[in-house]
Amino acid sequence: MSTVVLHGVVSLDGFVAGPDDDPGPIFDWYVNGDHRLDSQDMADPAPGGLRVSRASYDYVRPMWDAIGVMVIGRHLFDLTNGWEGRPPTGDHVVVVSHRPKPDGWHPEAAYHFVDDLTAAIATARGLAGDRVVALAAGDVGGQALALGLVDEVALDLAPVVLGEGKRFFGPNSTSVLLDDPHVVIQGDRVLHLRYRVRR
Amino acid sequence: MSTVVLHGVVSLDGFVAGPDDDPGPIFDWYVNGDHRLDSQDMADPAPGGLRVSRASYDYVRPMWDAIGVMVIGRHLFDLTNGWEGRPPTGDHVVVVSHRPKPDGWHPEAAYHFVDDLTAAIATARGLAGDRVVALAAGDVGGQALALGLVDEVALDLAPVVLGEGKRFFGPNSTSVLLDDPHVVIQGDRVLHLRYRVRR
Repeated sequence: MSTVVLHGVVSLDGFVAGPDDDPGPIFDWYVNGDHRLDSQDMADPAPGGLRVSRASYDYVRPMWDAIGVMVIGRHLFDLTNGWEGRPPTGDHVVVVSHRPKPDGWHPEAAYHFVDDLTAAIATARGLAGDRVVALAAGDVGGQALALGLVDEVALDLAPVVLGEGKRFFGPNSTSVLLDDPHVVIQGDRVLHLRYRVRR
Repeated sequence: MSTVVLHGVVSLDGFVAGPDDDPGPIFDWYVNGDHRLDSQDMADPAPGGLRVSRASYDYVRPMWDAIGVMVIGRHLFDLTNGWEGRPPTGDHVVVVSHRPKPDGWHPEAAYHFVDDLTAAIATARGLAGDRVVALAAGDVGGQALALGLVDEVALDLAPVVLGEGKRFFGPNSTSVLLDDPHVVIQGDRVLHLRYRVRR
């Protein structure tokens, strides 16, 4: 049975990005270290890419490896053009959207467009098997939490106040109790927190 | 020289209370332990009061003892009726308000009504001497942070999503960078975090 984890980087005031979708300084921890996160070789000397502190690498890399399926909203799909058909983590991406896949968009990609959030999570669970379903924070993620479809919440808390922007839990979230965090790891410009949702 | 600390209990989605000013479950940690916080005797057997975990007591009690002056907005003053003239921490309370002290309200109380936020913080610093100025989270606190009047931010982060309510940093906050937290302490239903503001 898969675990559904609502996941994202967040500012101290609860935003995953500014109003213009720019995460700004809350992503600093992705590029201020010397352990290559987006490569199978953490000492990969190739330029570019994500380079994090050792503490962040040791937490995030196994988490990424455990992900089987990502669930994202249409906004993130459009913003990234679906990462050109290559999921940054996992093997499949489920896009929650009332609109279908764009005509001719990467026909080979394992992207699944589902027009209903509950059905999208069910599809993702089916595809994930025993692996993790990673649900992107934001409007869709907050709705899923409110619907009781989320098992855990993982926040990468940046020491930044953004002031305004897109909320981690979206605009529709209702009151939800979580357990105390079972992960509290200090990186460099990020505090990794992970909570189980109370049933 | 006093330190100005913006301070409050906050939900994971950044709220200090619901829309009705009810903090709800984010205050659970204040009453779920056996160490009496609001008494000079931590084993005080008298009924009622705030009873926290040992970890929270060891962090919060010295913090409270260090406070010389509280700065609050008019909303919190009206909500609590100024705690009937007895500051919960410190010796003085500065109320940021365009309206004066209510006629006949506790003439003996060391409460100071100041009609300008910058002047209010200056008044509080003067009264505090070397002790801490504790600035309540919310609209006034967020404005002070945006104005560069805050030295540290102390959040007691509850494992709760409230969904909507009054924001810790208020509606007016601008983008501000903080250092990584120098305090990360896990209590029971609270994670105590403390950050210095970057200059």
